[in-house]
Amino acid sequence: MAEKFKNKVFILGASTTKFGELWSRSPRDLAKECVFQALEESGLELSDVEAIYVGNMLSGSLGGQDHLGAFFAEELGISVPAMKIEGACASGGLAMHAGFTAITSGLYKNVLVVGVEKMTDYKPEEVAKALMGAGADSEREAGATFPSLYAMIARSHMEKYGTTEKDMAEVAVKNHYHASLNSHAQFPHPITLEQVLKSSTVSSPLKLLDCSPITDGAAAVVLSQESGVRSQESVNIIASAVATDTLGLAERKDLTTLKSAVDAAKKAYQMAKVAAQDIDVAEVHDCFTIAEIIAMEDLGFFPKGKAASAIREGKTRLGGRPVVNTSGGLKACGHPVGATGVKQIVEIYRQLRGIAGKKQVKGAKLGLTHNVGGSGATAVIHILKSL
Amino acid sequence: MAEKFKNKVFILGASTTKFGELWSRSPRDLAKECVFQALEESGLELSDVEAIYVGNMLSGSLGGQDHLGAFFAEELGISVPAMKIEGACASGGLAMHAGFTAITSGLYKNVLVVGVEKMTDYKPEEVAKALMGAGADSEREAGATFPSLYAMIARSHMEKYGTTEKDMAEVAVKNHYHASLNSHAQFPHPITLEQVLKSSTVSSPLKLLDCSPITDGAAAVVLSQESGVRSQESVNIIASAVATDTLGLAERKDLTTLKSAVDAAKKAYQMAKVAAQDIDVAEVHDCFTIAEIIAMEDLGFFPKGKAASAIREGKTRLGGRPVVNTSGGLKACGHPVGATGVKQIVEIYRQLRGIAGKKQVKGAKLGLTHNVGGSGATAVIHILKSL
Repeated sequence: MAEKFKNKVFILGASTTKFGELWSRSPRDLAKECVFQALEESGLELSDVEAIYVGNMLSGSLGGQDHLGAFFAEELGISVPAMKIEGACASGGLAMHAGFTAITSGLYKNVLVVGVEKMTDYKPEEVAKALMGAGADSEREAGATFPSLYAMIARSHMEKYGTTEKDMAEVAVKNHYHASLNSHAQFPHPITLEQVLKSSTVSSPLKLLDCSPITDGAAAVVLSQESGVRSQESVNIIASAVATDTLGLAERKDLTTLKSAVDAAKKAYQMAKVAAQDIDVAEVHDCFTIAEIIAMEDLGFFPKGKAASAIREGKTRLGGRPVVNTSGGLKACGHPVGATGVKQIVEIYRQLRGIAGKKQVKGAKLGLTHNVGGSGATAVIHILKSL
Repeated sequence: MAEKFKNKVFILGASTTKFGELWSRSPRDLAKECVFQALEESGLELSDVEAIYVGNMLSGSLGGQDHLGAFFAEELGISVPAMKIEGACASGGLAMHAGFTAITSGLYKNVLVVGVEKMTDYKPEEVAKALMGAGADSEREAGATFPSLYAMIARSHMEKYGTTEKDMAEVAVKNHYHASLNSHAQFPHPITLEQVLKSSTVSSPLKLLDCSPITDGAAAVVLSQESGVRSQESVNIIASAVATDTLGLAERKDLTTLKSAVDAAKKAYQMAKVAAQDIDVAEVHDCFTIAEIIAMEDLGFFPKGKAASAIREGKTRLGGRPVVNTSGGLKACGHPVGATGVKQIVEIYRQLRGIAGKKQVKGAKLGLTHNVGGSGATAVIHILKSL
C-alpha cells in the first residue's frame, strides 16, 4: 500500500458540539450543529457535499435505529451516498479512514465525516452492556466490563514496568488541566493527584477518575480533493492506517501493548514518511489513564516502560513535546464513542491551523490521532500536516 | 464524479452459503465458509487480503455484537483493516461500494467484502422490531412494520397504474421458478399463481407469498486491482453508485417509484456508459413482489406502468431479457439483510462468467444489481461486465 493514491486529502472545516450529558439534545440536532459549523468554515455549500460517512457504534443496540447514513442525509436535506461505519469505539476513526479512502479514490470531490453518539439517555447498566458489544464472547460470558479489562491491562503494565497508580493519576491530572482550557469539554476543570487517588475504585487499580465518562456529542470534518478558499492555511491528512487484533485479551501474548496500535502506527509513519519524533501534537485514546501510558509507548513517543516518567516530567503537557490530548482527551473532554475518532481530527486540525485557543501548541506543524476500538481489537492512526 | 478513478475493479472470486433457517450455524461459521470458497476461486491466499468490509445490519440490535470488522478479521486469522458498513437492508451493497472505493483509491490491492446476517435465532416480533430500525421515527411510533409500508406502496401503484394482485403474484412465481434451479436458495421449489393469491394476508394487498422471508446467510466477494489468474474470464465492476432519500414514506411525493433507485441508476449508467437496454441480467431488491415491479420501472427496463405486463409476458424470466433475479431474488433465495447486496454481486458475477449452472443466462455480458435499504431511503446500484 502507501503512496499509490493520487489525490491529496485536505481538511477544509471541522467542528464539534459541546460534549457532556446533553439530555435535551437529539442525535439529529447534535450532528446538524457541528456539520453546519464545519461547512461554514470550509467555504463549501451543503450542495457541494458528495457523500457522508457516519461514525457511530450504538445506534442499533441502544437506539433501535439502523439506517444511520440515510438518517443524517435526510436531516441535512441532501440525498447523497451515505453510510454508517462501525468499529466499536474506533467507529469515528474508521469513518475518517473511509472518508480518506473516498477522497483518494477520486469518486467524490468533497465528503463529510460525522461522528455521533448519544449515550446518556439510557441506564448505565444498559450502556455498559452495549459497550461490551466491542469485546469477545468469552469476556461477555465471564461478566467482564471494559473497566475490568483495562484493569487487567493496567496490572500487567504495573508488574512488568513498575508503573504505579500515581503514574496513571498523572494522566488524568494533565488531561483535566488541558480540558480546563476547552469550553466544549465535558469536565472543563482541573483536578488534583490526590482527588484521583482518593476517588472510588471502579475496577482495581482503576479508580473513577482514571476512567473516561459516558458522553453525548458529535463532531464533523469536511474533506476535499482541493485546498479550497483557505489554501494558505491548508491542513492535509498525509496518512490513514488501520490494523486489527484479537477481540479478547486472553488470546494476546502481551497485555502491556496494543499490537493493533503498533501496527497501524508503523503503517502510518511509513505512509507519511515521518517518524514518531517528528510529531508535535497528538490526540490519543485515553479511555482509561493506563491506555494513554501505553499509547505513548505504542506510538514510539517514548521507549517501552518509560512513558510514565515522561508524563510525570510534563513532557506531554502544554509546553512539552509532543503535547498529548490538548482537548482533554477521552478522560476529560468526554467519550461519545462514535464521535471520538472524529473529534480527535477536529482538535489536531485546529492545532495545525493555529486556532486552538488557550490550548494552542505553538508552532505545531505535524499532528497524530490514535483511536482504539474495544480493548485494542481495532486501531486507527491518522497523521495530519499543515503547509 | 465518474471516470476520475484510476484503477479497474476486478472480481476474482465470489461465493454464498446456503440461505435459510440455519439454526446450527454461527455468523463466524457462515462468513468463514463463503470467504474461503471465494478466496479459493480467486487464486489468492488469505495473506493477500489487505482489508475487509463487512455488510451487516442487525449485529448490534439483535446480537449485542458491535465490533464486527475486527470480529471477522479475528475469525479469519488476519489483522488487516476491517470495518462494518451499515445501511439497513442495503448494508451489503454499501459494503460493496466501500470495497469498490478502496480498490479505486489504490490504498489496497485486494479486499474482501463479506455480507452476513443471522436472523432466525430471535423471535419474529424481535426481528420485525429490529428491522423497523431502518424506518422513520414516525413510522415506528405509528406501529408500522415493513409489510405495511410496502402495502401502501403497492396500493399506490395499483391505483395509479392498474397493477393487480395477480401481477404481483407473477413476480413470486417467477422468482420461485428461478430458485428451483438454485440449490443454495431458501425455497428451491416452484409455486403457482393460485398458491400466492390464496396465501394468508400479511398486510393487504400483500400476502405471505408476496413477502421475502427471514433468513440466515452470508456471501463474500474478492475484489482486486488486478485481473489475477483468471484474466480471460475476468469480471469488472464498471459502476458503483449510491443515492439516498427520506427515511419515511410520508415525506415523499410519489410512492410508485423509489427516487433513490432512480438517482443511483442514473449515476451508474453514466459511470458505466451503458443504457438500461444493454443489461442482460439483473438481481433486484424484491423484498416484496411490488418492489420488483417498481424496480423494473426505476431501472428503466420498462416504461412506467408497463413492468407488470412485461413480467406477465415472461420477459424477465429465464429465456427473456433482461432476466431478473436468477438467484430466486430476496423472495425465494432468501433475504439475510446484510448479505443480500453481496449475494446479488455473487450471482451476477457467476452469470457473467458463465458458471451459473441450470439458471445460466446464455451469453450474458452485462449485469446489474439493485439493493435497497428500508423502504427506499438508500439504494445501491452496481454494474458488472465480462470481458
